[in-house]
Amino acid sequence: MSYAEPLSPVPTEKPNAPEDWLQAFMDVRAGTELLCSPLETEDYVIQSMDDVSPPKWHLAHVTWFFETFLLKPFLRGYLPLDEAYDHLFNSYYETHGSPFPRPRRGLLSRPTVAEVYRYRHYVDEAMGVLMHNTPSEHSHAIAERVCLGIHHEQQHQELLAMDIKHILAQNPLRPFYSKRLQVPPTRHPVPMRWRAYEGGLVSIGLEQGNESFGFDNERPAHSQYLEPFELATRPVTNQEYMRFIELGGYQDPALWLSDGWHLIRENGWTAPLYWIREGERWYHFTLSGWLPVDPDAPVCHVSFYEADAFARWAGERLPTEAEWEQAATHTRNRTGNFAESGYLQPVAAEAGATNNLSDLLLQMFGDVWEWTGSAYRPYPGFRVLSGSLGEYNGKFMSGQMVLRGGCCATPASHIRPTYRNFFPPSARWAFSGFRLAREATR
Amino acid sequence: MSYAEPLSPVPTEKPNAPEDWLQAFMDVRAGTELLCSPLETEDYVIQSMDDVSPPKWHLAHVTWFFETFLLKPFLRGYLPLDEAYDHLFNSYYETHGSPFPRPRRGLLSRPTVAEVYRYRHYVDEAMGVLMHNTPSEHSHAIAERVCLGIHHEQQHQELLAMDIKHILAQNPLRPFYSKRLQVPPTRHPVPMRWRAYEGGLVSIGLEQGNESFGFDNERPAHSQYLEPFELATRPVTNQEYMRFIELGGYQDPALWLSDGWHLIRENGWTAPLYWIREGERWYHFTLSGWLPVDPDAPVCHVSFYEADAFARWAGERLPTEAEWEQAATHTRNRTGNFAESGYLQPVAAEAGATNNLSDLLLQMFGDVWEWTGSAYRPYPGFRVLSGSLGEYNGKFMSGQMVLRGGCCATPASHIRPTYRNFFPPSARWAFSGFRLAREATR
Amino acid sequence: MSYAEPLSPVPTEKPNAPEDWLQAFMDVRAGTELLCSPLETEDYVIQSMDDVSPPKWHLAHVTWFFETFLLKPFLRGYLPLDEAYDHLFNSYYETHGSPFPRPRRGLLSRPTVAEVYRYRHYVDEAMGVLMHNTPSEHSHAIAERVCLGIHHEQQHQELLAMDIKHILAQNPLRPFYSKRLQVPPTRHPVPMRWRAYEGGLVSIGLEQGNESFGFDNERPAHSQYLEPFELATRPVTNQEYMRFIELGGYQDPALWLSDGWHLIRENGWTAPLYWIREGERWYHFTLSGWLPVDPDAPVCHVSFYEADAFARWAGERLPTEAEWEQAATHTRNRTGNFAESGYLQPVAAEAGATNNLSDLLLQMFGDVWEWTGSAYRPYPGFRVLSGSLGEYNGKFMSGQMVLRGGCCATPASHIRPTYRNFFPPSARWAFSGFRLAREATR
Amino acid sequence: MSYAEPLSPVPTEKPNAPEDWLQAFMDVRAGTELLCSPLETEDYVIQSMDDVSPPKWHLAHVTWFFETFLLKPFLRGYLPLDEAYDHLFNSYYETHGSPFPRPRRGLLSRPTVAEVYRYRHYVDEAMGVLMHNTPSEHSHAIAERVCLGIHHEQQHQELLAMDIKHILAQNPLRPFYSKRLQVPPTRHPVPMRWRAYEGGLVSIGLEQGNESFGFDNERPAHSQYLEPFELATRPVTNQEYMRFIELGGYQDPALWLSDGWHLIRENGWTAPLYWIREGERWYHFTLSGWLPVDPDAPVCHVSFYEADAFARWAGERLPTEAEWEQAATHTRNRTGNFAESGYLQPVAAEAGATNNLSDLLLQMFGDVWEWTGSAYRPYPGFRVLSGSLGEYNGKFMSGQMVLRGGCCATPASHIRPTYRNFFPPSARWAFSGFRLAREATR
Repeated sequence: MSYAEPLSPVPTEKPNAPEDWLQAFMDVRAGTELLCSPLETEDYVIQSMDDVSPPKWHLAHVTWFFETFLLKPFLRGYLPLDEAYDHLFNSYYETHGSPFPRPRRGLLSRPTVAEVYRYRHYVDEAMGVLMHNTPSEHSHAIAERVCLGIHHEQQHQELLAMDIKHILAQNPLRPFYSKRLQVPPTRHPVPMRWRAYEGGLVSIGLEQGNESFGFDNERPAHSQYLEPFELATRPVTNQEYMRFIELGGYQDPALWLSDGWHLIRENGWTAPLYWIREGERWYHFTLSGWLPVDPDAPVCHVSFYEADAFARWAGERLPTEAEWEQAATHTRNRTGNFAESGYLQPVAAEAGATNNLSDLLLQMFGDVWEWTGSAYRPYPGFRVLSGSLGEYNGKFMSGQMVLRGGCCATPASHIRPTYRNFFPPSARWAFSGFRLAREATR
Repeated sequence: MSYAEPLSPVPTEKPNAPEDWLQAFMDVRAGTELLCSPLETEDYVIQSMDDVSPPKWHLAHVTWFFETFLLKPFLRGYLPLDEAYDHLFNSYYETHGSPFPRPRRGLLSRPTVAEVYRYRHYVDEAMGVLMHNTPSEHSHAIAERVCLGIHHEQQHQELLAMDIKHILAQNPLRPFYSKRLQVPPTRHPVPMRWRAYEGGLVSIGLEQGNESFGFDNERPAHSQYLEPFELATRPVTNQEYMRFIELGGYQDPALWLSDGWHLIRENGWTAPLYWIREGERWYHFTLSGWLPVDPDAPVCHVSFYEADAFARWAGERLPTEAEWEQAATHTRNRTGNFAESGYLQPVAAEAGATNNLSDLLLQMFGDVWEWTGSAYRPYPGFRVLSGSLGEYNGKFMSGQMVLRGGCCATPASHIRPTYRNFFPPSARWAFSGFRLAREATR
Repeated sequence: MSYAEPLSPVPTEKPNAPEDWLQAFMDVRAGTELLCSPLETEDYVIQSMDDVSPPKWHLAHVTWFFETFLLKPFLRGYLPLDEAYDHLFNSYYETHGSPFPRPRRGLLSRPTVAEVYRYRHYVDEAMGVLMHNTPSEHSHAIAERVCLGIHHEQQHQELLAMDIKHILAQNPLRPFYSKRLQVPPTRHPVPMRWRAYEGGLVSIGLEQGNESFGFDNERPAHSQYLEPFELATRPVTNQEYMRFIELGGYQDPALWLSDGWHLIRENGWTAPLYWIREGERWYHFTLSGWLPVDPDAPVCHVSFYEADAFARWAGERLPTEAEWEQAATHTRNRTGNFAESGYLQPVAAEAGATNNLSDLLLQMFGDVWEWTGSAYRPYPGFRVLSGSLGEYNGKFMSGQMVLRGGCCATPASHIRPTYRNFFPPSARWAFSGFRLAREATR
Repeated sequence: MSYAEPLSPVPTEKPNAPEDWLQAFMDVRAGTELLCSPLETEDYVIQSMDDVSPPKWHLAHVTWFFETFLLKPFLRGYLPLDEAYDHLFNSYYETHGSPFPRPRRGLLSRPTVAEVYRYRHYVDEAMGVLMHNTPSEHSHAIAERVCLGIHHEQQHQELLAMDIKHILAQNPLRPFYSKRLQVPPTRHPVPMRWRAYEGGLVSIGLEQGNESFGFDNERPAHSQYLEPFELATRPVTNQEYMRFIELGGYQDPALWLSDGWHLIRENGWTAPLYWIREGERWYHFTLSGWLPVDPDAPVCHVSFYEADAFARWAGERLPTEAEWEQAATHTRNRTGNFAESGYLQPVAAEAGATNNLSDLLLQMFGDVWEWTGSAYRPYPGFRVLSGSLGEYNGKFMSGQMVLRGGCCATPASHIRPTYRNFFPPSARWAFSGFRLAREATR
């Protein structure tokens, strides 16, 4: 059974009683295991760089999250399977004991993969008990945290796809995650067009009364003033990016932010991550193995610096996150190439999808996370969650840039227009691409 | 003759004819040399860390700027003193040849200090010729660039003060820049109060028609929407910061951005740069040597992470750069402790300065650069200068935070409300402090 | 079935016909797999530091050795199982293609452990064919290389024990290799005595006509002049080393070589590797888990610098390799605690073993590799093997010190008095201890 | 006045009364200052890599040596000029307070060069007092230490030449130490011949009764057995080394020790230090500036690894230090190109010097330090000096190789056949070359 089967959708409504969430909980837990089912035991152990975690660590960490924030505080008499896991699978919660050092996650052969699955099922069972027998005084808190835990596990589903890809890509044997992934469809190229926006005072972020789930960093909703702007109707494609490469984009310092210029020089970057050139053709590593680069698919696995340099080369710029959100909030087209499509790689935009509506935005959701020109900082009035969960998002608000819209490894139910993802500007192992913007022609 | 003598003011008007700028040019050139006059020859050679440049490098680089952007393009028949200087004293203009590697500036014993001064005077003389005999078709361009060069040299005057301080602070012999610096006055502590601002749609940045000089990064003026906010009437003082230290601020991970927490752990930071504790008292290194920390002066030489952690500890936050600018634009008090006061260190706020106007902002200008909560990114519609001068500001717009208001080493004529300074969030060797802000009580 | 069962002895005679070696070949191959039998699949994948290789890499590399130096050149029609293995499992033979980078061995999840075993058996079978049907013109070369390959695999058996220990020791879960290892016997402490040697002109190294196997670095035999000296009758014990620790050995720079002093300061070393103090007692990690340190067993897992510092502290010195060999060649006692004893850790000397012969050397073989005071350099007249096998030993003759005598993880048939092992002076993960020497009292 | 004037010879006799040494003391002190006389003040400050010390540090450190080991213990009422110098100018004597960190020597602008000279003269004067009024009970100890201090300062004279060369070579302005250095003579190439030695039991090291000065590491004299060997009559020349380069020596891993191979790959070394190729010709940096490489002069500024690789390429080897010393002890030709010749670079061997004595060794002394194949380890029975002076040589006896014979920057009176110099095998900034050896043809 391949991952191409749809992941069960997660409710996006705000939490009611915990038991309403049981099915969603079980679905997300099963989805994670389905995602890992093509792996060999050995694949679960590798940490291919500091940013990557071994798949078995992901499996255990999301479990630790439920244990730590739900079972230990709320399930009377709960006994952990192994006390040592509290240290081992704490990701970065400094106020909750001391996390095991991240760069050493790949040095742990134990617990074994089988033991990690045992841990998952042990916690799943206890979660079932808790969700069926919720102490009423904590009912709301529990529902809130179950909901958070589910979305947290969805985030790690995407991280698993990214990390597995990175792990397998290191190997000269050219292994692949699964040969039975859905084949991306061949499509006619869709030209990039510009869609104009009026700007003015707009509301950004998740409204207070909104019933949907959202992370703390999407709140509060607030006003922002936008100058008129235009947004490209689709992301930049591989073909467009190849032209940037061919015309010397990686050799011209005038195109690059200073940090980016030094980065590409030191690392010898001359193309996106996972790309290699053989003769006249570009190939790239995908979860189905090494394939020719599809010229019409969105470019992927580029850093913010590369996105920014391309935009400068093109005479345009990246959108701010507010511009992106303003456009995304008002588009009618929220479908996209998500994890459930089973491609696990970006695909070319579908011309038919637009009919004659040439201004309809394509691929705002799914395919590639889109780098914006906005640094990841708190919204005015931002408040973190209380307790250790306050470390969830807020403490990463320096040195990172915002990406929007989800990607081909994001579960469809996980994304929304206000969703703020973030990575350091040098990161490339996420499914990250970009879309151009520009000032409105006045 | 000590540095305490006032530096001649630089015109802040927009350029007219170059010859109108000659006196300003000569003044800024003389000011730089006056600033260096207390140095020993050996002091000019040291690079105490990668970010610091040897003073003789600064002296030569600002000269290179005039030679490169004025004499070579505009002065017919100009022959450089030494062709090799073009490479050696290019700071970071990648589109103008290849700069000599920054971390190796301290490995250059030649040109000697005397040769660097000879270079300065050679260029000064040629600049005099150019400014008196300007080809009329380039008159405007020359005036623009002279003006830019003057402000550029003022920036390096401040960098010289920062760098000299850092160089001397490394030395166990406890040297000082000058014992004859003006002594900071003793003052009664001024309590911190809050001043409320209404918010709404405000204009940020330098207006198009504005006759004042401004850097490209201050433009274009644009609208920004602010929620109501409150700003502290003065920066955080040493005494307040000592309390943060004593109450365990450096030990509580909940107060820190993740990057900051790792930074202080790895470097063992437990106080601002240049501070040491002896028994019950804190001392710090100043350009007049090691002195007891004045409890009422603004805290200085803290990183963005420390400023941010203090604000979180205090239950407040840092202002955004737009909030700061909005307040600064409308304050009546633009005086401050600048380079000309001759202290070259922050001093306590002056109670008398406010009379009974308890809401009057103090020390918005001078004393310490104030970290804001804003990442350094381009304004909407930002355009860089043409040619190599386009590298002046724009390419540094990643990985840095904005600071506002100037400091005790800034020439008074150099600062303005729209001025955007920037440093990486980890930097501490600038004269950097901060002021608190918060959401308006509703 | 535990590893404590004796490994089949390897013939130490010089090679005759290849088929005489078949049983020895099969025995050493089976021994390696027996050694790995207690491992979990996940344990095979980990590289806990650059010097350590994942166990599955060892299993494949020793197989690659037979494939590369025997099957490919001598077995007609041999087809490799996977061409890519030639690159992946080449350790350091630069003249034979390019080895896969050592520090990245732990990034390879594939081939899986099962595939590595398949590779072993594929090669074993082909080796059987080759050894039964040897082309007579290559008969001698094949026998030589089979013999070398067997000793090579024995070396990796010991490396496996060292590396597995290091891998498991990283894990906070405190796993162990096997709980069913033989328990080391409790013994009465044996006092250290001195045995005197006359010195004079002695022969060092392996004689030309000697029928025993030996590595190239043990040849040629040559004369060396020794001053009279004395050698300790047993290695330094844990108890003696604890006293060195307690009396401040790690704090006194006068005891240390300069490189050693900087090393222990930078790494914060204050005891042998794998030691931790809990209250008044020292514990150490063994392949049977964490155990109290046996005061009478030889100290183990010390660097050359620590051995050298201890000797200086004791007023003595380490023996040279020639002194050690001279003593070892003439001792009657060649038994020892080898891999076959099943302890896989050093054990206390057996008093009874000496009867009343107080000058009889104890533990010259087995238990711990003994650091000598000799740098690893070629013997006069040293010649490397021809072809890529010339890289076997000679190219490591810089920056390393010689160790002698084998250890508790060395197969008994692998060691001999002339055997030269070598490690960098900072290495501690080998089973390395030391024995004292001194000038003869004149 | 250039350095080419002869340095006054230092007595090599064993010390008698201190006052007999006063002239030698004054001569060596004056020689050091003469050596520095061509420097600019700025040149004194630079530390171009961790191994290099700023010239003013050398000037102060040798002075500190006399102050610490003579004035403070023996001159009644001696008051140091500055107590802080004891820390700043302690090189590596860990048992004498804590040395200022070596890599930070280049961060010290103070004391200024003038202050360092003042320190020198202050100490010189006090030394004069001490040497004229020696307390008779310490007369021998003082004479011993004065003698050691003089040879110590001679060592630093050579280090000054090496370090000044390295400092100036970093500078793209291509400065030179002195244009007025003596010009090396043009000579007819001298072919390399082999001189045979019988081997047998020889005495190595400085005899007990020997009246000459020698360092602790040259003692005690002891017997060593040598196989018959042959030694090249002159060092390898630039022309011979160029051929090694041209024929791919730097590209063939089979020629290199493993550490050396990795070193040249990582650093991109393809020629000796200070060499650059322009078109068909090689140039190198000398203390007289950039000059064409003289094909007949000994190759210089090569690491041990390069010397070793060349020897392997040539089918020969490096001599051991015992072989070298045996030959050097018995050669009639102890003249050489030393510091006093004023070339400060190696020169071609002089054919005439040999007449028809084709077996006469050339250039055993002076020109280039000759790498031997011997690791730097203690002689049998080695004892360090007592007290902090025990750190002089012994603690460096790991990780280094022995070089013999002195070089073009060594004062002539400083060298002797038993002299053991040592550097890490990667070092190239010393004036280091090599001579070939081989087993005797039997």
